[in-house]
Amino acid sequence: MSKIYIGIDIGGTNIKFGVFDKDLNIIGKSSIEAKVETGAEVMIDRIGSHIEKITADNNYTTEDVKAVGMGSTGQFNLTEGIMYSCPNMPLFKNVPIRKMLSDRTSKPCVIENDANTACYGEYACGAGQGSDNMVFFTLGTGIGGGIILDGKLVHGTDDSGGELGHIIIHPGGRLCGCGQRGCIEAYASASSTARRATEAVIACEPSSLKEVLDEKGAISCKDVFVHAAKGDKLAEKIADETARDLAIVCIIMRHVTEPHKFVFSGGMIAAGEPLLNAIKKHFADMIWSMKKEDVEICFAQLGEDSGIIGAAALARDIK
Amino acid sequence: MSKIYIGIDIGGTNIKFGVFDKDLNIIGKSSIEAKVETGAEVMIDRIGSHIEKITADNNYTTEDVKAVGMGSTGQFNLTEGIMYSCPNMPLFKNVPIRKMLSDRTSKPCVIENDANTACYGEYACGAGQGSDNMVFFTLGTGIGGGIILDGKLVHGTDDSGGELGHIIIHPGGRLCGCGQRGCIEAYASASSTARRATEAVIACEPSSLKEVLDEKGAISCKDVFVHAAKGDKLAEKIADETARDLAIVCIIMRHVTEPHKFVFSGGMIAAGEPLLNAIKKHFADMIWSMKKEDVEICFAQLGEDSGIIGAAALARDIK
Repeated sequence: MSKIYIGIDIGGTNIKFGVFDKDLNIIGKSSIEAKVETGAEVMIDRIGSHIEKITADNNYTTEDVKAVGMGSTGQFNLTEGIMYSCPNMPLFKNVPIRKMLSDRTSKPCVIENDANTACYGEYACGAGQGSDNMVFFTLGTGIGGGIILDGKLVHGTDDSGGELGHIIIHPGGRLCGCGQRGCIEAYASASSTARRATEAVIACEPSSLKEVLDEKGAISCKDVFVHAAKGDKLAEKIADETARDLAIVCIIMRHVTEPHKFVFSGGMIAAGEPLLNAIKKHFADMIWSMKKEDVEICFAQLGEDSGIIGAAALARDIK
Repeated sequence: MSKIYIGIDIGGTNIKFGVFDKDLNIIGKSSIEAKVETGAEVMIDRIGSHIEKITADNNYTTEDVKAVGMGSTGQFNLTEGIMYSCPNMPLFKNVPIRKMLSDRTSKPCVIENDANTACYGEYACGAGQGSDNMVFFTLGTGIGGGIILDGKLVHGTDDSGGELGHIIIHPGGRLCGCGQRGCIEAYASASSTARRATEAVIACEPSSLKEVLDEKGAISCKDVFVHAAKGDKLAEKIADETARDLAIVCIIMRHVTEPHKFVFSGGMIAAGEPLLNAIKKHFADMIWSMKKEDVEICFAQLGEDSGIIGAAALARDIK
């Protein structure tokens, strides 16, 4: 029987698992509760047990598992396989998570931050397929990023490269959670888009979003795009500013690693074609005229499976 | 006798040549007029003849020349070795310059844009030595850039990566020569720094630079830094804004490829420690607080030889 790869995506609530063949076809998937309060040793042991279970459930033996990949939020030393810290898991400090997982499973393991696993998943099997030079964004509460260059993830000196949400686009502007001012994350994440709309409504700018705020007590990013689609002027303006700011970051990255493809993922892409077309329009309007740019801007294709797929792809590609 | 490498730096007026040993020690250098109006074939032939001359002048034979590297401004297809266009040399359109040079010299040749050769020179022998992940800027009429990642130059999909002068830092701001608005080049190059000072003086902001403008008819970037050092408030403000904008680009790049070192070169670094210290201060003030940054910001060390050294280093490193 041919070899299989396990991809794991650790979230604050659940840990997702996928079993993949060498071509990264999904054989099976499942999840367990994260129970982050139990600490690293217990969690790694539970992960090891679930790898055994999901392997057996899909009619394989642990002998068939060739390697394991695991993605999580957090700060890492990827070379050493250490998780320095993780906002979802306060008990995980300087944990040699790769060695622990490798010891528990007796398999080669790779760890990676979750934006990078999602990026690598889209590169290996999704919207980025065949594009050895791509840039990836996740648009959610924050903005995560990943860079593929010459077919490999860019990690930077201390594994904090590709933190594209903290590219400054409006110096001195809105305060970001990271401590900087003017980050793209402080403007164009789903949360920040909702926040800008809320602030405008509270400042009495006329909008159909006022009713949403009055009724639900909060405006979501989805509300902004829904009301923009219905023709509300304020919502249109907020949505357009988000698209423009995302286009600015694409232009910046085009002059840095010059990707052939930009892939957007995360909850916000539910806004669909109007968002994508607006990003493309602003990109074309603002990019230099020195040369014609041949670049694709598109949405991710793998949805919530990108993390387990990317983790499995990294496991497959362990050298 | 051991092998030697030839490094060539093509400018609009002169072509500089250097002869180097395998450790990139400089054995000899000289230059010839560019005579760009004679076209590609004549120029490449003259370059070939001068390689023979400089080799003999330094007591080597053409047998000793192992490889030749050449840098120039312009747009290239580096994989194919084609110069698409060059602002200094309007007759050079889609010229297979690497093959022509290789045919003329019977040696392996490499071509590269001049910001990248200078970057590679500083990486191989200058301020970037030992730093496999660095970012390089040239501050002159424009702002050029180069990125070293894992010890290699970043070229991007169509060899227009590392064009760091066109990173947008003030969306909708000053018009850049490239057609974009708000590029770092439109604010913090030597020319743009001088231009911002000139505009302020013309707008009647009080400054000792007014006398310079009245007497010489123009304010240079050097004037700005000299008057800032003497305590002129406007010059101080303009110089500080330049340093701040350069710090913003460093922060952006720190979140992208996360270099360990930033190296600034070009005429503007004659401004010395006050400029360097101001960039460092703004970087420290504006960078995120999520982790302590361990990064060096410094000036280039090779001066005008960086181009020939970098070209020779690229020749040495031909695979």
